[in-house]
Amino acid sequence: VKEQTGLPIISEIIDPRMIEEMAACVDIFQVGSRNMYNYPLLKELGAISKPVLLKRGFMATIDEFLGAAEYILSGGNSQVVLCERGIRSYDSSTRFCLDLNAIPVLRARTKLPIVVDPSHGTGVADYVTPMSLAAIAAGADGLLLEVHNDPSNALSDGAQALTVNDFDALTVKAR
Amino acid sequence: VKEQTGLPIISEIIDPRMIEEMAACVDIFQVGSRNMYNYPLLKELGAISKPVLLKRGFMATIDEFLGAAEYILSGGNSQVVLCERGIRSYDSSTRFCLDLNAIPVLRARTKLPIVVDPSHGTGVADYVTPMSLAAIAAGADGLLLEVHNDPSNALSDGAQALTVNDFDALTVKAR
Amino acid sequence: VKEQTGLPIISEIIDPRMIEEMAACVDIFQVGSRNMYNYPLLKELGAISKPVLLKRGFMATIDEFLGAAEYILSGGNSQVVLCERGIRSYDSSTRFCLDLNAIPVLRARTKLPIVVDPSHGTGVADYVTPMSLAAIAAGADGLLLEVHNDPSNALSDGAQALTVNDFDALTVKAR
Amino acid sequence: VKEQTGLPIISEIIDPRMIEEMAACVDIFQVGSRNMYNYPLLKELGAISKPVLLKRGFMATIDEFLGAAEYILSGGNSQVVLCERGIRSYDSSTRFCLDLNAIPVLRARTKLPIVVDPSHGTGVADYVTPMSLAAIAAGADGLLLEVHNDPSNALSDGAQALTVNDFDALTVKAR
Repeated sequence: VKEQTGLPIISEIIDPRMIEEMAACVDIFQVGSRNMYNYPLLKELGAISKPVLLKRGFMATIDEFLGAAEYILSGGNSQVVLCERGIRSYDSSTRFCLDLNAIPVLRARTKLPIVVDPSHGTGVADYVTPMSLAAIAAGADGLLLEVHNDPSNALSDGAQALTVNDFDALTVKAR
Repeated sequence: VKEQTGLPIISEIIDPRMIEEMAACVDIFQVGSRNMYNYPLLKELGAISKPVLLKRGFMATIDEFLGAAEYILSGGNSQVVLCERGIRSYDSSTRFCLDLNAIPVLRARTKLPIVVDPSHGTGVADYVTPMSLAAIAAGADGLLLEVHNDPSNALSDGAQALTVNDFDALTVKAR
Repeated sequence: VKEQTGLPIISEIIDPRMIEEMAACVDIFQVGSRNMYNYPLLKELGAISKPVLLKRGFMATIDEFLGAAEYILSGGNSQVVLCERGIRSYDSSTRFCLDLNAIPVLRARTKLPIVVDPSHGTGVADYVTPMSLAAIAAGADGLLLEVHNDPSNALSDGAQALTVNDFDALTVKAR
Repeated sequence: VKEQTGLPIISEIIDPRMIEEMAACVDIFQVGSRNMYNYPLLKELGAISKPVLLKRGFMATIDEFLGAAEYILSGGNSQVVLCERGIRSYDSSTRFCLDLNAIPVLRARTKLPIVVDPSHGTGVADYVTPMSLAAIAAGADGLLLEVHNDPSNALSDGAQALTVNDFDALTVKAR
């Protein structure tokens, strides 16, 4: 994939014993929302020299999110990227409640880069473009987007994936 | 005030018996978040011919929000403006969690105009500008902002008020 | 009804203009969860001499709940009964999350009687008996229960109503 | 400790690589709330023959809680005990919202034993006794309690620990 696209390979890590093997082919390690409190994993990611994309736990406070980043940073790995990806609320009209307030709140407290994942954050493809533009306007440094050349036949998360055309249109609007 | 500024007068209504008296001097009636479920009030606002700014209950679902609007609309008053103003979450880093997801969700379900109140939604003046820009990017039709010529001496809600300079800068950025 | 059963008549009030008319036939006024923040209503209930059953807003903090009671008390009506009836949470396995923690928390802060409504709090008849017993064990002074002689044909809220037999069995267990 | 008291030793496990070493001296492995989604850990606990006390994630739905138990059960370890220990809510009057509704909901869906931890669930020693009695009344099979012979000098969690006298009194009331 990498040779063809030139894009970095991001891959989720859930077991610290896999770090070494994965490091051979992965450019960025991703810690998923359900593993934000997995301290042994975070500590060992602090001992490597690859970037770590740390997703906010879907019921984590901002304090806890920054505390999790600190586990990695204090191990000596300064390449941490924070990712807001939606929190749980009482409302089921979206899969999660993408919390864009987190952007200015984090910005005031850390110099780490902040990206937003509106695909998981909303769970609905139609809402991904407006929430992407909103994330950028609120000050996000980047977006994590699910794009599929045929969302309706995707093996997973098709309902939240942009088509390639949607993605191209979003790129234009974002600029 | 109106003669000097030319701006419409928005005033909160909490008691249906005040409608008649207030109608003489108010341009837009505002229903606050705590009154979104006050059905006798909503019904009587359906019988007048002034615009109603309906704030979302801070723990109301989108369904309940649209249901509250319907109480006004079904009485014959079609001038309803929906206002997202923050919902309650488990995180206390902002006073409320301004729910910008509500904008595309509402947009898909109603033709009513949608405005956003980032002052009450965040409760922190520093976050009002980025969240205002985000609201516009997500598709909001307007903003409801607290502005004060001396926020630190405001009688109420000073912590969330923009200065006049902040407001002017926001106006430029928003364009 | 009253003559036949000897039970007090509890009726929900949502509009302050109905107080006088209802007072003629109602023994206890009930303020529903959606009206806990309806301050004009609360104030006028403070001026009468009938008991008021005040339900906690399903999004209200304990502070706000006690603040709402204070609106009635400060008007001179000391007959206020607090009712926990479930709060909103992220989990949809019950209609609301009956918050029994509220009982000891309220007990530490007020001398007002505390009752619990497990019918609305859970929304599921099968959970009403265990949660009723739990409420009593946590220190509740009373229960508000929905009972129907034929729940499956009830006009409303049948899914959460106890049968008469369930109710009799609960009465025995509660003792 | 074990020789003196005869009580089983429960110890929290957060890293699957520690299982073998800990198994030599631990009677029951505890999976903490922050590790309920740690699937590699759960899988390996499914391959041992010691009981596992699985605490509910403080943001986990009942479905997710039972799903986490299934990770252990499907590995062949049937000795799983479910522990409700409080969920996150918008109200800060207790540290967490001990969710006793979970007891009848779980009871209807699983035959696994259900225990409740009112110490972590409330975070306040004064609320532990009433919530313990409520948990038993709701059908809990057991309690997990913090007890300290000098809570005000405890190294951690002193605010939620019962004194030995409180504990003795609770034991009597519970019967």
